[in-house]
Amino acid sequence: MTALWVIVLCGALSIVYAIWATSSVLSADQGNARMQEIAAAVREGAQAYLKRQYMTIAAVGIAIFALLAYFLGVLVAIGFAIGAVLSGAAGFIGMNVSVRANVRTAQAATTSLAGGLELAFKAGAITGLLVAGLALLGVTLYFIYLIHFAGLDANSRTVIDALVALGFGASLISIFARLGGGIFTKGADVGGDMVGKVEAGIPEDDPRNPATIADNVGDNVGDCAGMAADLFETYAVTAVATMVLAAIFFGMADKAQLQSIMTLPLAIGGICILTSIIGTFFVKLGASQSIMGALYKGLIATGVLSLFGVAGAIYWLVGFGPLPGVSYTGLALFECGVVGLAVTGLIIWITEYYTGTDYRPVKTIAAASVTGHGTNVIQGLAISMEATALPAIVIIAGILVTYSLAGLFGIAIATTTMLALAGMIVALDAFGPVTDNAGGIAEMAGLPKEVRKSTDALDAVGNTTKAVTKGYAIGSAGLGALVLFAAYNEDLKFFIANSAQNTYFQGVQPDFSLSNPYVTVGLLFGGLLPYLFGAMGMMAVGRAASAIVEEVRRQFREKPGIMKGTEKPDYGKAVDLLTKAAIKEMIIPSLLPVLSPIFVYFAIYFIAGGGAAGKSAAFSAVGAMLLGVIVTGLFVAISMTSGGGAWDNAKKYIEDGHHGGKGSDAHKAAVTGDTVGDPYKDTAGPAVNPMIKITNIVALLLLAILAHN
Amino acid sequence: MTALWVIVLCGALSIVYAIWATSSVLSADQGNARMQEIAAAVREGAQAYLKRQYMTIAAVGIAIFALLAYFLGVLVAIGFAIGAVLSGAAGFIGMNVSVRANVRTAQAATTSLAGGLELAFKAGAITGLLVAGLALLGVTLYFIYLIHFAGLDANSRTVIDALVALGFGASLISIFARLGGGIFTKGADVGGDMVGKVEAGIPEDDPRNPATIADNVGDNVGDCAGMAADLFETYAVTAVATMVLAAIFFGMADKAQLQSIMTLPLAIGGICILTSIIGTFFVKLGASQSIMGALYKGLIATGVLSLFGVAGAIYWLVGFGPLPGVSYTGLALFECGVVGLAVTGLIIWITEYYTGTDYRPVKTIAAASVTGHGTNVIQGLAISMEATALPAIVIIAGILVTYSLAGLFGIAIATTTMLALAGMIVALDAFGPVTDNAGGIAEMAGLPKEVRKSTDALDAVGNTTKAVTKGYAIGSAGLGALVLFAAYNEDLKFFIANSAQNTYFQGVQPDFSLSNPYVTVGLLFGGLLPYLFGAMGMMAVGRAASAIVEEVRRQFREKPGIMKGTEKPDYGKAVDLLTKAAIKEMIIPSLLPVLSPIFVYFAIYFIAGGGAAGKSAAFSAVGAMLLGVIVTGLFVAISMTSGGGAWDNAKKYIEDGHHGGKGSDAHKAAVTGDTVGDPYKDTAGPAVNPMIKITNIVALLLLAILAHN
Repeated sequence: MTALWVIVLCGALSIVYAIWATSSVLSADQGNARMQEIAAAVREGAQAYLKRQYMTIAAVGIAIFALLAYFLGVLVAIGFAIGAVLSGAAGFIGMNVSVRANVRTAQAATTSLAGGLELAFKAGAITGLLVAGLALLGVTLYFIYLIHFAGLDANSRTVIDALVALGFGASLISIFARLGGGIFTKGADVGGDMVGKVEAGIPEDDPRNPATIADNVGDNVGDCAGMAADLFETYAVTAVATMVLAAIFFGMADKAQLQSIMTLPLAIGGICILTSIIGTFFVKLGASQSIMGALYKGLIATGVLSLFGVAGAIYWLVGFGPLPGVSYTGLALFECGVVGLAVTGLIIWITEYYTGTDYRPVKTIAAASVTGHGTNVIQGLAISMEATALPAIVIIAGILVTYSLAGLFGIAIATTTMLALAGMIVALDAFGPVTDNAGGIAEMAGLPKEVRKSTDALDAVGNTTKAVTKGYAIGSAGLGALVLFAAYNEDLKFFIANSAQNTYFQGVQPDFSLSNPYVTVGLLFGGLLPYLFGAMGMMAVGRAASAIVEEVRRQFREKPGIMKGTEKPDYGKAVDLLTKAAIKEMIIPSLLPVLSPIFVYFAIYFIAGGGAAGKSAAFSAVGAMLLGVIVTGLFVAISMTSGGGAWDNAKKYIEDGHHGGKGSDAHKAAVTGDTVGDPYKDTAGPAVNPMIKITNIVALLLLAILAHN
Repeated sequence: MTALWVIVLCGALSIVYAIWATSSVLSADQGNARMQEIAAAVREGAQAYLKRQYMTIAAVGIAIFALLAYFLGVLVAIGFAIGAVLSGAAGFIGMNVSVRANVRTAQAATTSLAGGLELAFKAGAITGLLVAGLALLGVTLYFIYLIHFAGLDANSRTVIDALVALGFGASLISIFARLGGGIFTKGADVGGDMVGKVEAGIPEDDPRNPATIADNVGDNVGDCAGMAADLFETYAVTAVATMVLAAIFFGMADKAQLQSIMTLPLAIGGICILTSIIGTFFVKLGASQSIMGALYKGLIATGVLSLFGVAGAIYWLVGFGPLPGVSYTGLALFECGVVGLAVTGLIIWITEYYTGTDYRPVKTIAAASVTGHGTNVIQGLAISMEATALPAIVIIAGILVTYSLAGLFGIAIATTTMLALAGMIVALDAFGPVTDNAGGIAEMAGLPKEVRKSTDALDAVGNTTKAVTKGYAIGSAGLGALVLFAAYNEDLKFFIANSAQNTYFQGVQPDFSLSNPYVTVGLLFGGLLPYLFGAMGMMAVGRAASAIVEEVRRQFREKPGIMKGTEKPDYGKAVDLLTKAAIKEMIIPSLLPVLSPIFVYFAIYFIAGGGAAGKSAAFSAVGAMLLGVIVTGLFVAISMTSGGGAWDNAKKYIEDGHHGGKGSDAHKAAVTGDTVGDPYKDTAGPAVNPMIKITNIVALLLLAILAHN
């Protein structure tokens, strides 16, 4: 019990940090009236969007809450609500800080690059630590309530179901936020660029473009709130799934031992919040003035400290010796944690290789732009596909090593450790929209060129960190989903073994062998989900962008003074239009992964003739479907996020003066590639993460519901 | 035995048809001297390319022949040689007819559309029937030799290994031909278009473009020879895998019964050659002048007749009653055959929906072109991803229905029936390059506009049939690969059951359950292969196209008379350059699927600690890898081929006068999409088919080699 309260303390520290950092950000200079006016427009737009998004999700959430309460009891439904509310809160608070930090970062950049960096990073760190801290607090406090105050056994079904439901709540927010935010931000970006840059020939963030405020709003609702919800979800879901596995694997241990082992993933999360907070203080611009170097200093400090922290947590809770009822030791679990950290480092490094301007991939895309739009896109697509190979191999190696060290639980501990760094990693990501906005505000407010140079330098790094954290997000999501799949599998075994109580499972004999055609069918059906989902996301962006193009053209036509600078564009109209489009477009694709496991289960149940045989076939197909989603989802998501990042930076590389620089034909081709990469990397690709996990977690809940009734 | 000789007779009929049709094509008018000169240049280029390609493959082939002879004996190595030589022959003869039919089709089109259609289709039918006929004859005659003259048991390992090696020979040719031909044709097409259409502003097939002959050569080596090798392979491999499954499932039946059942897939192939030949005579331009209608008449006639033919073949060989040692009847096998025909029909229909100008997908891409290059590509990518859903669902339904009818053997029979139509389907496909070339020749020779209108009409239909047959090719490849996977699985079981003789397999206990991490690892590794392979193919096209762009620019610069029409471009240089590039680029990607199963086997063997446990882990991982390749390969290939077709026709739709027509900004954006779609649909996408199967067949051979030594 002490351990749990210590973990709560760690989680609370993240909130203390957030409060301190927020007051520090808010006390900074807000710049001149023009800057404040622009920032206010962005802030209002972002708040209005998020309000509508959350209201829409709430409608779906309330229905699901009622269903869960009916099928699985109030405690489980409350778990769902906790996950959903806290995930929403992390995104909401983070975004509110972000829309206040942007203008202050622009102002700070008028004095020094270091000042701008400090402010922007601090704003990012607030979101990052709130994501990790709120997720940890939510899971830990509800776990304490359930086992201590409600008096339930740590491995009782209600506790497990309630924790899984908590993960589901987070997942639901996550998929809506990722997709809605992604459609908003890329609809604005693509639409605004096409009509502004390409047609009207005005630069990005030019105040004459009616879509420019919407573009800045998008950065916040997509990159900040969307990413926060995404990693909150992966964090919570992985912690929960690891706890579920612990409950199953160590169910035979005595009560205190079991509770210690179940607490382990939370303890790893807790200690890593401390190391993340310490790491933030290492982010300081050195003599080399390398912004990326400053950020990496923080990340490396966190990583190295976490190595010791995780060792300490494991040693304290379960010791390094043999564990009860299994063939591996506590030391092996620590080694798995090290593997998790190594996987994180490698994936970050690989993603930077594929998306950074210093390496072959981006350079070849830039070079291919010289021969035209077509070759730029061909090379970009080729790179996007190639970019999947090394991360997949790293994940494969991680699975092999951790499994040989400590079986399935080893994989789970490695993933937990990987995700424990989420606080620091999200900080790097949430830094991006702040600097992006700061650049936009500097441009629109007509600040001097040198300021724009500082904000551009910050923005360029923001692009890299956004790409890198996406690599981390999908890598961890893939591993997290594998842990969830293991939980499904073990849960199913548990219900079958206890089919005297769980009568639904009597006579059920799932066959997960690849030679079972129901497994093949499940794999194929699961495999198609990311494709269909990705297609829907891309099309939604296309439609939203087209609507923006029409709207901007209309404003240019009806208000000829806009281009001359004598008339103000109606920014609010574009924001409003995108808000409606994003909310409308996010619903159907988001429901796809929620309903698919249920559909597949009952479809196969009936096709296979019902009864125990039908159930066996259906459970096998659903299990295979979960793995099918992971297999294609991993490749679809990595190829989209890395490919999009590479396209973006190939454009930047040309803008830096290569292949003819800005305005050359190569640049035009690179802009096309960047446009294509936008929905790839910021809408469809990252939304695949929560979609993979939501399919898995719905399957877990389906098991619980079938067992319960 | 009688049955086998009757099947040989059917196969021989395809050759009789080919001889008759060839002489009929060759007797047609070759047009004027200018046309003959152009056609001769295309012919020489195509022959020179194919010669070099086959010489390169021969070098690899001889090495593999020696390895197989050493490891598995001469009979097996001869099987490999038969598969390779016949597959090469089908492509070689088909292409040689194609490069002679092109100019004659152009000439016939000067008189009537019907005349052009007849000639072009006859040329396609020669390739189609040779593909089916030679594949059938190769398998059947070698089977007769082995069981009759060499006196081996039908289900002896040598017979099975020799047949599998025959499939492998075909696969090897296929992957090289698909990839090499694909790189050649799209390097020429993309490069030529970019510098000709976009930079110099001259139309496609303009004789002033130095890449134009290379483009026409490419149609023949890629679309004709490449597709022929691809379907030869799928046909042979599926027939062989079905025979292997029959040998395993009905191994307990008496010798005559076993032989009858093993002959069944060949009999289905034989009867469908007859129905395909009859079908070709139904291809006649009706009063509506609908070319597509004429082609579909032939296809439908073949399909309907095959229904009766397959019923007859099954009734004759095994009867409609219960089969020995299994729980299903001959009638159920017939029902599986009907499912195979239905799957063929549905996939063709779905592909036409996604790539035809009359339906939503192509229209939305055309509409998205109005707002620019970026939105065209975004919508195209979205459609390409969406296009995977329905074919996947059809395949899933096919698996579920046939499995419930007759287990794994039912899936195999359905796939065999699907492929038995290959003769007719390849005819539709090989029709494409002939009409494409005819259009090119008409343009270059300056034939009157009305002629070009006829050849354009034929060419447009050729685009659709090419897309449709690609859908069929990948659908059948996916199902064929599943049959191969089943063969791997059953073969492995067989060796383990007989580990007294096959001592390598003593103590081996593969665990194909999804909960085995080696299975997860195998799935992920298999999943990455199509991505890596696709990336390599795309990049190869990019490089080849860039080389062509440079070469064409050089010629324009050094010979200013070319553009004025006073100087002749050096066509041969472009052909030569592409030949070298394609041959060089095809080797490494082609070896990827060949070496991967071997690499994974030994890597996992050592990682899992060697011994029986290492073998068990390695066999599980390799099996999962095979399925992983199928799962992502199916989606990658369908999305690429359908997406590419949709982009192509979106451009055509705009050229037909929509959204501003030729020369408009929308058209320029559509040209970009078409360029991106080129390597998608003609290089990387279709080459995934043989790569899926080659991984599977190498795994089968690996089993044989391990068992043998």
